Amino acid sequence: MSTEQSAAPSGGDAILDRFYGVIPAGGIGTRLWPLSRAATPKFLHDLTGSGTTLLRSTYERLEPLTGSRILLVTGVAHRDAVCSQLPELGDADLLLENEPKDSGAAIGLAAAILARRDPDIIMGSFAADHVINPGEVFRDAVREAVYTAATGRIVTIGIEPAFPSTGFGYIRSNSPLDIEGAPNARAVVEFVEKPSEEVARQYLQSGEYHWNAGMFVAPVSLMLEHLQKSQPELYDGLSEIADAWETDRREEVMARVWPTLPKIAIDYAVAEPAARAGDVAMVPGSFTWDDVGDFAALGRLNSAEEISELTVMGEGARVFSESSSGVVVSDTKRVIALIGIEDVVVVDTKDALLVTTTEHAQEVKQAVERLKASGDHDVL
Amino acid sequence: MSTEQSAAPSGGDAILDRFYGVIPAGGIGTRLWPLSRAATPKFLHDLTGSGTTLLRSTYERLEPLTGSRILLVTGVAHRDAVCSQLPELGDADLLLENEPKDSGAAIGLAAAILARRDPDIIMGSFAADHVINPGEVFRDAVREAVYTAATGRIVTIGIEPAFPSTGFGYIRSNSPLDIEGAPNARAVVEFVEKPSEEVARQYLQSGEYHWNAGMFVAPVSLMLEHLQKSQPELYDGLSEIADAWETDRREEVMARVWPTLPKIAIDYAVAEPAARAGDVAMVPGSFTWDDVGDFAALGRLNSAEEISELTVMGEGARVFSESSSGVVVSDTKRVIALIGIEDVVVVDTKDALLVTTTEHAQEVKQAVERLKASGDHDVL
Repeated sequence: MSTEQSAAPSGGDAILDRFYGVIPAGGIGTRLWPLSRAATPKFLHDLTGSGTTLLRSTYERLEPLTGSRILLVTGVAHRDAVCSQLPELGDADLLLENEPKDSGAAIGLAAAILARRDPDIIMGSFAADHVINPGEVFRDAVREAVYTAATGRIVTIGIEPAFPSTGFGYIRSNSPLDIEGAPNARAVVEFVEKPSEEVARQYLQSGEYHWNAGMFVAPVSLMLEHLQKSQPELYDGLSEIADAWETDRREEVMARVWPTLPKIAIDYAVAEPAARAGDVAMVPGSFTWDDVGDFAALGRLNSAEEISELTVMGEGARVFSESSSGVVVSDTKRVIALIGIEDVVVVDTKDALLVTTTEHAQEVKQAVERLKASGDHDVL
Repeated sequence: MSTEQSAAPSGGDAILDRFYGVIPAGGIGTRLWPLSRAATPKFLHDLTGSGTTLLRSTYERLEPLTGSRILLVTGVAHRDAVCSQLPELGDADLLLENEPKDSGAAIGLAAAILARRDPDIIMGSFAADHVINPGEVFRDAVREAVYTAATGRIVTIGIEPAFPSTGFGYIRSNSPLDIEGAPNARAVVEFVEKPSEEVARQYLQSGEYHWNAGMFVAPVSLMLEHLQKSQPELYDGLSEIADAWETDRREEVMARVWPTLPKIAIDYAVAEPAARAGDVAMVPGSFTWDDVGDFAALGRLNSAEEISELTVMGEGARVFSESSSGVVVSDTKRVIALIGIEDVVVVDTKDALLVTTTEHAQEVKQAVERLKASGDHDVL
C-alpha cells in the first residue's frame, strides 16, 4: 500500500526511481456521444480497434517506466469500471473524486498526496484518453522530461505540429537547456491559447511552437509551490484533504472540502504562472499523438476492419456498405446498411443514434448540450 | 357471404351495381426496407402520416362506390394483419395466396371467383399500397371507367404525367370514345415499357401518353376471355381453383394447383394482349397518384411533423436535427440526432438501420438483394 512496496523498473537510476505516474481519468468526451457519455466516458472505450481501452493503453504505456507507481484519479462512479480495466491498482493507487473539479484539483490532489508519501517524488501526469504511438518513443520523451524535472523544473512534452491546428493550444520554446540525460529539453517562453488558422500557420513556419498535449512532469514540491502561489484557496483545500487522506477522517474531509474547491485547469493553475516565472521546460515528443477529439478522428486512428473507405468499429458489427465512406461505430447487433452516402458518421447505440458527417463531427458537443437543455437526460 | 347480401351505394344505377372492387395486397415494397419487409409489407404501413395504413386508405377510397363489395387478395401470412386493418371483411371477401404468384394469378383468381358468383360483375383492381388524393376525384374516374367497361372494354385509369418519369410504364391513347357517363374515355393504342428520359420527354410533349398506374376496370367475363387466350395454362389452373372455391375441396385444390401457376404480371397476361386486340380504353385521372416507390417519396407525401426541411415519421419519434434535411423514419423510441447532413434518409427499426440519401433511395432494393445473398434473412 505504501510507496516502499512499489518497484520501479528503472535499473537503479536514482532520478527515475523518483518518478511516479498520475493518470487523471475524467472528462466524458462529449464529442464522442452517444458512444461516450456520463456512464461510459471516452477513456473506457477501445477507440482504435486495438482490443484495449484508452485507459488500459495509457497505463500499459507508462508501466515500463513506473512499474506499479501509478496513481489514478477518477470519479467515484467509475470505480468499478476502472478497477475492472486495471486490476493491478491497489486501494492506495486510486483517488476518487466526489464530483468533477477539472484538472487543477485532480492533479493537485495527486501532487499533495504524493508529497506526503515522499517529498522527492517527480510526478508525470498523462490523460487517460489520448492515443500515442509508439510507446517506446513516448517513454524516451518522458525519461528526458524526468531528468529535466529533476533540475527543478515543470516540464511539458510538446508535440511536433502535424498541421496548423486551431483546436490545440501551443507551447513556445527557445534555447536548449543542456541537461544531462535530456539532450532535447528547451526553455519554455510561454503557453499560447488556440490560435486562428493564420496564426497557427505562422507558428508552424517559425519552428518555435509545439502542440500542448497537457502532459506535465514535475517535482511534486514544485507543483505545489506554484499552486500555492497562484491558487491559494485550491492549495489550502487540497492540503487539508491530503493531510486527512491516510486517516479515518478522509471521507469526512473529502465530502466537506472537495465540493468547495474552485474549478480550474492545471494549465491556468500551475503551468502558465510557472512559465511566467521561468520555471517551465519542454521536451519535444516525436511520437504520434491524437486526443480523439471527435468521430472524424476514428477514421484516422482505426486499425479495425475497413470496408473500402469505411471505418467500421464495434464487436459483432453487421455493416453493409454500397458506395459509402466515413465512420460507423456499432454498439448494437443491428444490421446497418449504408447506400451512396459519403463521409458519413453513424454511431449506433442501444438508446441513441447519431448521423452526421466527418466535417461536422466537432459539432456533436453543441448538439449534446441542446439535448441536455431539452431534458433528454436518459441518453446523455 | 354471398353477393346478394352486399349493398352497393350506387343509388340503384344498374351499371354501377355491377361494380366490385378487388384489392391485390401483395408486394413487400423492398425499396422501403427496413420499414417494409416480408412480415410487414408496405401496405401495412402508414406512409403519409395520415394515421391510416395504405391498405385501409385504399379500402376507404373504394367503399363509397362499392360498399362492402370488395375482395382482398393477399398472402396467407398477412391474414391477421389484414383483418385487423379491415374488420369489415367477411370470410368470402378474402382470397389467401399460399405463395406470391404476381398480379396475373392474384387478379385472375379474383376474376374467376367473381364470375362464378355473377358473370355480369365489372371488377376494378387497385393496388393496396398507392397514395391517391382526393378520393372524390379518384371515384369520378373509376365511375367513368365502370361505364366504359360496361360497353365491353378493359379500362385502365391513366395518370396525367407530372414529369418525364423513367420509372413508370406509359399508356398511349388517341380518339375519345363518346360513351354515356364517360365523357373522358379514350381508345388505347398501346402500353409502352419504362422509357429513357429522352423518350419520356417526347411522350410528355405529344400529350398522347399517361402513366400506367396498374388500375384496371373490366367485365370479369372479358378479363377471363383474354386470360384464356393469352395464358391458357394460368387460366386453366385458376378455373380449377375457382370451381372448387365454394366447396370443401378448396384447400386441397389450392395447395395442389396454385404453386404450379406461372408467375406473370396482369399487364402482360391481359392488358397488353387486349390492347393489341383493340379492347382497351383509358380514362384519365386528374387526382394525384404516388406509388411510394422509395423513401424519397415520403418527403413529398408526408403531412407529419416537419423539422425545417426534415420529414419525420414514426409515433414517438425523438429526433434532434441541426442543419439537416431529408427523411427520418423512426420505428423505435431511440433518440436520433442528425447534425449537418443534407438530403439524408435514416430509417431506424429494431433490428436494422438504413442510412442513405434521397438521391440513392431507389438503390435500396439492390442492397436488400445483397443482404439476402449474404444470408442475413433475419432482417428481411
